[in-house]
Formats: sequence, C-alpha cells, structure tokens
Amino acid sequence: MNYRHDIRPALAENIGERGLSGAAFERVLARARPALDALRAWRDSRSLPLLALPAARDDIAALAPVAEAMRARADDVVVLGTGGSSLGGRTLCALAAAPPSGARPSGARPRLRFIDGIDPHGFEALFAGLDAARTVWLVISKSGGTAETLTQFLTALAWVRDALGAAAVGERFVAITEPADNPLRRLAARWSIPTLDHDPGLGGRYSVLSSVGLLPAMLAGLDGTAVRAGAAAVLNATLAANAPGESEPARGAALSVGLLEERGLAITVMMPYCERLDAFALWYRQLWAESLGKDGAGTTPVRALGPVDQHSQLQLYLDGPRDKMFTLITLDCIGDGPRIDAALADDPALDYLRGRAMGDLLDAEQRATAASLAARGRPARRFHLARLDETTLGALLMHFMLETIIAADLLGVDAFDQPAVEQGKALAREYLAETTEGASA
Amino acid sequence: MNYRHDIRPALAENIGERGLSGAAFERVLARARPALDALRAWRDSRSLPLLALPAARDDIAALAPVAEAMRARADDVVVLGTGGSSLGGRTLCALAAAPPSGARPSGARPRLRFIDGIDPHGFEALFAGLDAARTVWLVISKSGGTAETLTQFLTALAWVRDALGAAAVGERFVAITEPADNPLRRLAARWSIPTLDHDPGLGGRYSVLSSVGLLPAMLAGLDGTAVRAGAAAVLNATLAANAPGESEPARGAALSVGLLEERGLAITVMMPYCERLDAFALWYRQLWAESLGKDGAGTTPVRALGPVDQHSQLQLYLDGPRDKMFTLITLDCIGDGPRIDAALADDPALDYLRGRAMGDLLDAEQRATAASLAARGRPARRFHLARLDETTLGALLMHFMLETIIAADLLGVDAFDQPAVEQGKALAREYLAETTEGASA
Repeated sequence: MNYRHDIRPALAENIGERGLSGAAFERVLARARPALDALRAWRDSRSLPLLALPAARDDIAALAPVAEAMRARADDVVVLGTGGSSLGGRTLCALAAAPPSGARPSGARPRLRFIDGIDPHGFEALFAGLDAARTVWLVISKSGGTAETLTQFLTALAWVRDALGAAAVGERFVAITEPADNPLRRLAARWSIPTLDHDPGLGGRYSVLSSVGLLPAMLAGLDGTAVRAGAAAVLNATLAANAPGESEPARGAALSVGLLEERGLAITVMMPYCERLDAFALWYRQLWAESLGKDGAGTTPVRALGPVDQHSQLQLYLDGPRDKMFTLITLDCIGDGPRIDAALADDPALDYLRGRAMGDLLDAEQRATAASLAARGRPARRFHLARLDETTLGALLMHFMLETIIAADLLGVDAFDQPAVEQGKALAREYLAETTEGASA
Repeated sequence: MNYRHDIRPALAENIGERGLSGAAFERVLARARPALDALRAWRDSRSLPLLALPAARDDIAALAPVAEAMRARADDVVVLGTGGSSLGGRTLCALAAAPPSGARPSGARPRLRFIDGIDPHGFEALFAGLDAARTVWLVISKSGGTAETLTQFLTALAWVRDALGAAAVGERFVAITEPADNPLRRLAARWSIPTLDHDPGLGGRYSVLSSVGLLPAMLAGLDGTAVRAGAAAVLNATLAANAPGESEPARGAALSVGLLEERGLAITVMMPYCERLDAFALWYRQLWAESLGKDGAGTTPVRALGPVDQHSQLQLYLDGPRDKMFTLITLDCIGDGPRIDAALADDPALDYLRGRAMGDLLDAEQRATAASLAARGRPARRFHLARLDETTLGALLMHFMLETIIAADLLGVDAFDQPAVEQGKALAREYLAETTEGASA
C-alpha cells in the first residue's frame, strides 16, 4: 500500500478513556459489511462509474492529444467551475506546484489557475493578468447549468471574442459536461468549442479520477495513469477484503462513526503536514460535508495545515472542547530542503537548528503534534507517506472516497445526493429577477 | 458605523426555537458589563497597547520612510513569520489584491508574498521565482525565537549572502521583534539589518493594527491611517457605551456565548461573500481559536467563503447537525463587475443571467444563503458593508478583537495567553535533537 494508516492513536487503549473503545470500534466495523457488499455489487453491475475508473486506460489515451493541443496554444490555462468541478483538479495540480509567480520559461507547461467564484473584483483582476491569444479556458459543469460557471464562461467568452474576434473563440475553450442537452453544451456547439463528456453517473465530488481532475493534471505535466494506479490499489484491496477489518477505508469509516457515536465527536480535523496537500484537505472537506451532512447526520470537516496551524489552531485542539477527531497526514521529510548554514547559526540559542535541514524541523514538528494530541487524550489517527507523488495521491483520494461512502452507509444517509442546496438555488434566481426589475424600473 | 451588524436572524423570535431566546441574550449581555469596565480601565491605565493603537499616528509617520525605502529596493517583498506575524498583514494586503501573476508594470508596487510555513518543497520553489537583487525580506517574530521563522530567516539569509555577498545582506532585510535581547535581534544586529520594535504588550493575534500589519499594508499601497480610523470608531463606541447593548462587539459576544450556553452550538462559521475577505476569515480563525480554546472552553471557528462553499459546505450547514452559528459578511455589489452580454445569452435557459452584472448574481446568492439558513432555523447573524476599504476593514478587525476579548471574559478564560502549545514546542526540539544524533551516528 502507498500509505500507512495508523488508527491506534485514536483508540482508548492507547490514549485513555476519551479515545474509542476497542469494543465500540469492532461493533461499528462489523456494521460496515453491508457497505462493502454494496460496493462489490456496484462493481459487478457497473452501476457506480467511480469503481470502473481506476482500471480504465482508454480514456486517458484519448485525453492526451486534447491536453497536448491545449498546451500548444496556452501559456495560461484557466479552469472555470465550482465545487467538485474545481477541487479535484486543484488537488492533483498542487503536486506540480510551480513558483507562485515570475516569468514562464519558454517551452514550459502552462500556468494553471482555478477560478471557482464570481467575485466581480477578482474577475477583473484575472483578465488584467492574461494574454487572450495565449490563454485557454477549460469550462467544467456536470449539469451544464451551474449559474456561477455559466456566468464565468459567458464573461470569459465575451472577453475572448472582443480581443480576438468571434472566429477565434472555438480554439480558446474546451468544455466538459454531461452528454444530455444543456445550456453549456448548446453554447459550446454554437461557438465550435470542443466538448468532452462528463459521466452522468459520476457526481462532482467523486469526479477527480475522471477527465475533470485528470485533464488539468495532465496539463500540469502529471501522470494520470499513476493517479489511477494508486487509486486501483486501494479499491482492489477493499473489494477483495474478506472482512471489514481488512479494508483501510472501512476501518477509517468505523473509527469516525464510532467516535461520533461513542464519544460525541462532531468535528473531524484534516491536517496534512505538507503544503502540496492543502488543496487535498479542501477537496476532502467537500467530499465529507456534502456526502454525510444531511438529515441531521454527519460530522463537520475542518481543514488545517501543519505546522502553520500550530500557531493558530493547536491551542484550541489541545485544550479546547473535546469534540474533535484528527487526521494527521505526515511525510518522510528528514534531510529535505535547504540546510541551515552552521556559520550563520553560531548563536548558542540556535544550537538546535544548526546544520539541520528544513525537513528535519518539519519532521520533528509533525511528530511533536501527534505526541501532544496523544498526551492530552485527543484521538488522532495518522496517515504516513514515504513520498508524495501521483500514485500516493491517487491512493489517498480513493481511500477517502471509499471511507466516505462506507461512513454514509453506517450513518444511514445517501452518499451521492445534496438535496438541501436546491432551495437556495431557486431563491437566488428569484432574487436575481427582482434585482433586475428594480434596476430597470 | 462602517458596518451594519444584524443579529436578528440568530434570535428565536425570528427563526424559531433553535435560535437564541431573547431572555438568554439579555442575560448574557448583562454579564458583559465587567468586560466593558475592564476595557475602560485598561484604556485609562494604558496597560493594553491594543487600545492605544487606533488613535496613534506618530508611528505611522515613522513607518512611511521605511516602507518607501523598501519599495525602492524591491520588486518582491517576502514577509517571513507565522501565526499572528503573518495573518494580519495578509488580511490587510488582500484589499490591494493584484492579478495573481503576470509581469509587474514598471513603477508598480512590489508584489507581496507571505510565507508562514517551512515546507522544504515550497521554499525551494519560492527561491526559484525571485531575483535576489530586487527582493526585500520582512522578518517578523514577536519573541524573536520562533523556530519556523528563524529557520525561514536563516535560509533566506544564506541565499541572499550567496547571491549578493555578505555586505549586501543588511539592505535586503527588515526585522520586527521585541526590544528585549533575543536570537532574531542578535542576528539582525550582526548583519546590520534595520529592526523595528514589536510592542511586548501586544500579542501576535492582536497585532494587526501595529507595524506587523501596517508595514505590509503600506508596502501594498494601502492607507494605514484609514485602517486605524476605522478601528477607532468601533473602539470608541464600545468604550463610550453606557450599557453592553450599546456596543456591537458586546452584542456579538453575548450572541456567541448565549448560543453556546443555551443551544450548545460549538461551531462558529465565518463566511464572507467576498474573496478579498478570505484572508480575514483566516485571521479571525486564529484570533477566536487561540483566545478562547482553553480549559475545555471555546467554540471552533470554521472558515468558509461564499458563494464557493455553497457548492461544498452548504448542504451540511442547512441539513447537517444543528451545532453551528453563522456569521455572514455581505457587501453591496449590485451592478459590480463585468456584465453578461445579452447577445451571448440569448438561450432561453439563460434568461435569468442575460444583461446581469456579475455582482447582481453575487448579491442574489448572498441573500439566498441568508434566507435558506433562516428558513431552516439556523442562527446566522449578518454584517453588511456598503463598501470594502481600509476604514471598513479596520472597523471589522477591531470589532472582532473586542468581541473576542469580551467573549473570553464571559467564558472565564484569559484572552491573551496560549499555554497549551508550549509542550509541543519543547517536544519538537527534543525530537529534532534525536534526529540529528541518529543522522550522525
């Protein structure tokens, strides 16, 4: 496996009575069997496309020339979309993190930017930094009717048309949406914009392994096949498990649900010690919240980042209310990064830093946080990665999608819908109509 | 006042029985009187420097030439520091948000970057994007002994020395630290680095109105005096209040504590509908968590962003556990930003967007979210701003610092310490020492 998943520091036998009791863990774990059976049935009936993606390769082969053509035309690629249409791509592309600014070396890969909001101020600043003739826009909306994405798209479309002429629009955009007729698809057809199919059976928050995540990743120079291979390893292990205890996602789901049921822990903190996993935590936050937060169920995901949040949230985590479980993601990093020049650190107060690599300090801090949480009896499971690459990240993504699906089954909610947000969408359209009437009155 | 603070959508009389009852609100509000008395006593005795800052102007006059000299030498300014040494500056500088990349026009203000972590990978990418001869580093650590900041500083120091020679180091850095002898101050003296005093009575998370926040803001071209003026208006109104009900921060604190005590709401979601306030939410999260999260007390701050999180967290917020209160920050934005070209949106399915400004949709969405939360009886107070500028942001910053201090008093904890994190710091040093021994063995 590409990660080590250690739940011991969340169990009562290791951290004292506020951890999960072994008996409760085993009880909840046994309840995960139907979810595993369901996953196998969905795999066999091919009714959940998510489960077929890890083994698929044809679609990646088809994506490669699309990515190549986009790269040839672009110094900048802007991905328009929101929620699951944005977070998966961002999560993968963070692996290829480039310097935050500066000139782009010739022949380099395009700069990728993900725009998920409709802030008027932010959008105007965006245009100011782009060359229309060297920018390609990737527009992603599963339904093809997301108001924010259509607003982004129509705004960018006008800007490109005004800058380059209507005939150039078709080669400045690529769209991803469902095959069924919808507003985005109609606009794309009218402007001769190449359009890729979004699988209708793949919800946005489960779409990272499809073109929605992999096309941006391939534009960033990442290996989509390796992402899938990492995901396949985790999926196959779970589908082959003879008992829930043989599946790490099932164990993780049982831990989370057990801590909620036995200890009332309503908050789950995701805290990687790696900046390249900051976007991953944001992706996880959507996955967990939108899949489980219904009918009064669910726990609230909180995104944190080590070691930065040691100076912001750790006081609360260690000494505040006992209402949280923690997921620490740590990396082998000893010896990594710049090393502190001994000649500069000859002050005796700097003894502890002299000659150390930046990664040495990071390693010490991630272990110290784990130890501090354990010492205070705060349940904190740990994922440890020997390295962070496409395969490992693919494995983590599949782990958490499966863990979420299993947790939903344990909580008795539907992992794949989001019924409560529809009312707000209707209200927004109503208010928008009123605004316009007011303005034209 | 520079903002409208409407707590009605958090009260039972308006949203039903899950809101705060009027009786509980009044009871908790009455308990805020000692905190207001304490603030007045601290002001009179000049024992809390935070309260003197809003009226101070001399120090801003002294900062102006420092900022000017830095700007003359820099295309890029990198602020090194973590926690409160980073978040305040970031919060203010977000007002001057520039395009995320692209060439810097000649004569423009320097690009500001805030580096708050010690990710080995991130740091190497940082150096790759900088020109040593046109970069100035601002190093901020109150104690002068923060391990991460010293590691950042020593790493940057070696890089600058190697690129430009030892004699050039002094003009490539500026430091802010306490007057007392400490490692940062000694290093700065040895390398002839100009050093500004950090007030010893000003904790990092309360330092945004000092040089810690204002020097970065002034480098970004913002008006530090206006930030102080906005803060002064809120402070003066609270200090002049004859009863807690006349102070908005006291009303906010009573609301939060009342909802915790009466309804058990342990999570507080800060959700601005403005990307320029994303960093503000991060600043608030530290302020609230580190000030209140002790002795088992406090509530957990969660940072959200509208409308992006409508597609990520809103399902959970509307239909998940009833354990949250919400703070929405909304802005006048009707008519703002690019307008959707009617000719492009002639598809009948796009009727609702045709001719609308991006800000029209944003306005409709922020109102729809408020209405949806109210319809489901989820307490959501609202801050509304006519515009976002230095004065308004200064007012918001002071509001939340005062609200936090008053809430701490209501909860019976010390708003100004963070005792639980010390153990982890000691442990990290211990582990680091072991690592080195292991490596050299």
